Amino acid sequence: MKKQVLTGIKPTGRIHLGNYIGAIKPALGLAENQSYNTAYFVADYHGLTKIHDPIEMKELSYGVAAAWLALGLNPDSAIFYRQSDVPEIFELSWILSCFAPKGLLNRSHAYKSMVEENKESGRNVDAGVNMGLFTYPILMAADILLFQTELVPVGKDQIQHVEIARDIAESFNNQYGETFVIPEYVIQEETAVLPGLDGRKMSKSYNNTIPLFEEPKKLQKLINKIKTDSSLPEEPKDPDDSIIFGLYKEFATTDQSEKMRRRFQQGIGWGEAKKELFDVMNSFIEVPRSEYEDLLNNWDRLDAILLNGATKARKKTIPFMKEIKRKIGLYH
Amino acid sequence: MKKQVLTGIKPTGRIHLGNYIGAIKPALGLAENQSYNTAYFVADYHGLTKIHDPIEMKELSYGVAAAWLALGLNPDSAIFYRQSDVPEIFELSWILSCFAPKGLLNRSHAYKSMVEENKESGRNVDAGVNMGLFTYPILMAADILLFQTELVPVGKDQIQHVEIARDIAESFNNQYGETFVIPEYVIQEETAVLPGLDGRKMSKSYNNTIPLFEEPKKLQKLINKIKTDSSLPEEPKDPDDSIIFGLYKEFATTDQSEKMRRRFQQGIGWGEAKKELFDVMNSFIEVPRSEYEDLLNNWDRLDAILLNGATKARKKTIPFMKEIKRKIGLYH
Repeated sequence: MKKQVLTGIKPTGRIHLGNYIGAIKPALGLAENQSYNTAYFVADYHGLTKIHDPIEMKELSYGVAAAWLALGLNPDSAIFYRQSDVPEIFELSWILSCFAPKGLLNRSHAYKSMVEENKESGRNVDAGVNMGLFTYPILMAADILLFQTELVPVGKDQIQHVEIARDIAESFNNQYGETFVIPEYVIQEETAVLPGLDGRKMSKSYNNTIPLFEEPKKLQKLINKIKTDSSLPEEPKDPDDSIIFGLYKEFATTDQSEKMRRRFQQGIGWGEAKKELFDVMNSFIEVPRSEYEDLLNNWDRLDAILLNGATKARKKTIPFMKEIKRKIGLYH
Repeated sequence: MKKQVLTGIKPTGRIHLGNYIGAIKPALGLAENQSYNTAYFVADYHGLTKIHDPIEMKELSYGVAAAWLALGLNPDSAIFYRQSDVPEIFELSWILSCFAPKGLLNRSHAYKSMVEENKESGRNVDAGVNMGLFTYPILMAADILLFQTELVPVGKDQIQHVEIARDIAESFNNQYGETFVIPEYVIQEETAVLPGLDGRKMSKSYNNTIPLFEEPKKLQKLINKIKTDSSLPEEPKDPDDSIIFGLYKEFATTDQSEKMRRRFQQGIGWGEAKKELFDVMNSFIEVPRSEYEDLLNNWDRLDAILLNGATKARKKTIPFMKEIKRKIGLYH
């Protein structure tokens, strides 16, 4: 039996190389793995807890869908849908809320940290907290449980979300008999911590990222900004101590990497090394970038792909919701 | 322009005469009033905050639908649907939660009284509170706002629910432009406080009710239990000081009432008066009771009527939800 895997994709700003290597690439690998059924969705309604500007919402949601497709997500391998196109999720979310003790949500890390921040600033504990922010772990439980998800790949900060989904599912199952699969989490080891422009982990918060779909001239400029030492071109260099080599090997073939390693050891000018890095990155990005730009200019095509995914998703969710409602006693 | 009115009907236990005279009869009047468009719904998903037994859920939900129909609700005059058949309500509920400050819900009377009770018993403030109980005012706001409701008939204890719906609607409208009608409440004056078996207001909490669809023998027995004084049959009696006359006049024609008033003043035996009361009640209830029993034995017919109502409801809610989603930026 194939295992059901589910991953939500937040509508966030420009995707950078670190996102791709650390999260998107492994997810694409799972989608092609024959041991798994994968469901990937654009979590636009989770985004609504914070994004109240319609233009931003559109740009981020369509943008993230375009990025995943451009990078190789095959909508025939994974079910790829937009959360807001599957209404059963929200109905289930209400049902689950009737089985979620309020105390469970009071203890949610995300909520607690908002409360702490408010306390430190001398504000009311719930200042700035809308009910979406408070209750989103229930919506997440609905996302997970509606698909009978067995495995949820998570970062460490998301373990609690799966635990909350498990708690609610168990409470429902105790009441009405076996209904929901109890999901498990798999902690995503960060397979590759990609160095950013300054050598630290590439991350938006360090402002050291290389946006994934950067146009060639800007990409070149960013790469030129990478700090290097003042060693002369002919001096031997340690490849494993170099941000440039660290980035190079993520985008090059094994052969290319080995050659570059030797050139570093024999001595290579930083300008030359940066040019090689640009070439290998740019040739990796070239095709996805043009596909991404095409998709971004064709929201109708994105709609068609996502709605097709929702149709596939609902072939599972509609009959399952009927079963749930019959168990609750809403139908005879 | 006809005004849109909306009323939710809780799936509760056996409906009694007091419910009918105080709430159902005025609602049926509104449904036939040409100045209003009325939407009445069985609030089964609100019931789920407390009813976790599927058999109870079915009996109460189908029971309350059967009662309203048997008492004369014409599904061609009012849109009559089951909340759980209109999925847009739950999707809207999530949207609204992203515009509902948590503080607004903290201050909900119903939640606060649960907290008070817990405090008095020395329990954790949120003991026994599930998230459905905490968040139901948002679901209620979705019920109201999705139908562009202008008037919500409420008891005094429900004013706050309409105020919460107004607050959330205004906050959404401020962000995205005029979208939701801002609803108003109409306080339902209790047009008739029907006396119960003991002379106090007929109410489940006083255990003095006459169930609406009681079978004749049991009805007779209940009426015989009404306490009377030891005055002799031929002694004149004050009709306005008599529970029996108080009940009689609610079910009799004006003519019958006037006659009975005179008989009281001239002297009537309590046994005779009770017999007359039984006759007038029983003949009022006879047709609805048999219709009620027919409907209770035909859940398929109830489903058909309710699903037909949901189809009519969704002719409004589906296009409105699309408009809302476009405003939020989920579609272009």
